[in-house]
Amino acid sequence: MLTIHSDAHRLHHGAGEFYRGRIVPCFEMPARVEQVLASVTARGLGAVVAPKAHGRAPLERVHAGDYLDFLASAWDEWTALGETGDALPYAWPARDLRADRAPDHIDGKLGFYSIDAAVPITAGTWQAVQASADCALTGAAAVLGGERAAFALCRPPGHHAGPRAMGGFCYLNNAAIAVQAMRDAGVARVAVLDVDYHHGNGTQAIFYDRADVFFASIHGDPAVEYPFFAGFADETGSGAGVGCNLNLPLPWGTGADAYGAALDTACAAIAAHGAQALVVSLGVDTFAGDPISHFRLDSPDFTRIGARVAALGLPTLFVMEGGYAVGDIGTNVGNVLEGFARG
Amino acid sequence: MLTIHSDAHRLHHGAGEFYRGRIVPCFEMPARVEQVLASVTARGLGAVVAPKAHGRAPLERVHAGDYLDFLASAWDEWTALGETGDALPYAWPARDLRADRAPDHIDGKLGFYSIDAAVPITAGTWQAVQASADCALTGAAAVLGGERAAFALCRPPGHHAGPRAMGGFCYLNNAAIAVQAMRDAGVARVAVLDVDYHHGNGTQAIFYDRADVFFASIHGDPAVEYPFFAGFADETGSGAGVGCNLNLPLPWGTGADAYGAALDTACAAIAAHGAQALVVSLGVDTFAGDPISHFRLDSPDFTRIGARVAALGLPTLFVMEGGYAVGDIGTNVGNVLEGFARG
Ligand SMILES: [Zn+2]
Ligand SMILES: [Zn+2]
Repeated sequence: MLTIHSDAHRLHHGAGEFYRGRIVPCFEMPARVEQVLASVTARGLGAVVAPKAHGRAPLERVHAGDYLDFLASAWDEWTALGETGDALPYAWPARDLRADRAPDHIDGKLGFYSIDAAVPITAGTWQAVQASADCALTGAAAVLGGERAAFALCRPPGHHAGPRAMGGFCYLNNAAIAVQAMRDAGVARVAVLDVDYHHGNGTQAIFYDRADVFFASIHGDPAVEYPFFAGFADETGSGAGVGCNLNLPLPWGTGADAYGAALDTACAAIAAHGAQALVVSLGVDTFAGDPISHFRLDSPDFTRIGARVAALGLPTLFVMEGGYAVGDIGTNVGNVLEGFARG
Repeated sequence: MLTIHSDAHRLHHGAGEFYRGRIVPCFEMPARVEQVLASVTARGLGAVVAPKAHGRAPLERVHAGDYLDFLASAWDEWTALGETGDALPYAWPARDLRADRAPDHIDGKLGFYSIDAAVPITAGTWQAVQASADCALTGAAAVLGGERAAFALCRPPGHHAGPRAMGGFCYLNNAAIAVQAMRDAGVARVAVLDVDYHHGNGTQAIFYDRADVFFASIHGDPAVEYPFFAGFADETGSGAGVGCNLNLPLPWGTGADAYGAALDTACAAIAAHGAQALVVSLGVDTFAGDPISHFRLDSPDFTRIGARVAALGLPTLFVMEGGYAVGDIGTNVGNVLEGFARG
């Protein structure tokens, strides 16, 4: 299986995120990708290649132009005010507030274009997120070119990023950008299977009213877990997309059996939708040892996830999302990919 | 002029707020009220009395019951998880996220019921905010009872708190609660004049579709100033309330002349509305020395504000809002009240 990787991810390394009343070191760190790359290489899963630059056009198919402008200029606007640390938002257009008019001040823009305080913008963030999206686009091109599967080793991750908002360590929605590229290349129906521990609220929002993209997500119940305000079972799509969004929230403590049953449900729905290609938002924060999550999967369970996905028989792009147990992330991602390759 | 004050404000003293990428000591601190109380007492402005407890009913006339339940239980839910520091939110129902379903976990609830990260909840917050609202209600009762004016020395402040959200150091909207109490006592039309440096987004939201309450606010342009997502001139009310909301955003650096002209405009609109009572959201963060604001009023300018308000000739309740130049807040608030009393 082809892996697409760029060193540019190292340009994004936030010092801290605001979490539970304090600033904590970012859970989403460069070492994550280095561990996964080492595992992929050690297992001999296939070639590792650099992404091809795809430019801004495919990003604009998913994200608002003013949001991309913001991401491109935020660091310069922040440092122009004398700031030297990471830029982070502190006020949001929630509740009765307006989300229709971007403020001029960078403090306002940061909140206008985000949903939480876990999205530091650093000097290299814009470069890193473009390279991350290019990994996904290069992987999509490989699958479109006839590869059975590819692995976009994206960092930063993407599934919490919406059309006009960053959140949950995510800036550009790599999976959604890849899906849209497949659609634009003529694939009539694409499915997204999001196995990250957290609901993929950004991907859901991007495709919520569309019938051509089926979104299925298995995740910690948002009643007790980030993103808190999306991912409930009653979110089934709107307009033309009614019935094309499947959320399978599961309780804290979910282990392999209940997880496997939900995965069967998601895969059956994807098959029923008639998708011709699959994008997997591959988070492994479902691991029992993950520092911010509450499922109980063990490393061998990830091999079974890969095999179950392979049984769908679809051209498949894996896109790296979360997973914060840095010592185990390589093993767990490698297991998914190896389980798929053997499956 | 009667002043209403409660020592209970000291029970709320947040250690820090999240602001511009870091945790900073709370600008909104107990010393603010102590300084104002000393000034009021030294000037002999009138009696200082404790508030009468008004219970939950008048709060429910403005805030959602589930929001009040949240405020009452948040600290216990937070500390039940082993936390010992202040509770603060970190994820919000902005953008495509749902604001219709309260999460079960306290981390989710904190975001669900807020708009920013400047609202620490401490062990004594609920007690303090109830006492603060009682100051406003006791002041309203005094004015309803025939006093020409009263001063509710509220802390925490209130004007950023909406029907179901805390924000900007505010938890219960003291001014709105007082307005509603006046309405419920039979005053047909009430006006709010918000002279705090920041737009009173919570008060606006509470009365936005009503014709019986006129809201006028003079504040820093939200394009460059908190709350960023409300307070623009095109927000003029909705439904029955169209024409009953007047925002007068002014640029950074605004001094006494431009401010005075805006105040004349606001007062003329209040007079034209035919209000029978006035509630002034009295922030003095328009002061040139304020650490988080950008207007250029000097201390004598506040005397003129008081005199201009007095010229409206309405029964008037002053409700304390912001002002963070602690060394000058007593002088500036005292000047407004003395300017009114002499006016
Ligand atoms: Zn995750
Ligand atoms: Zn203020």
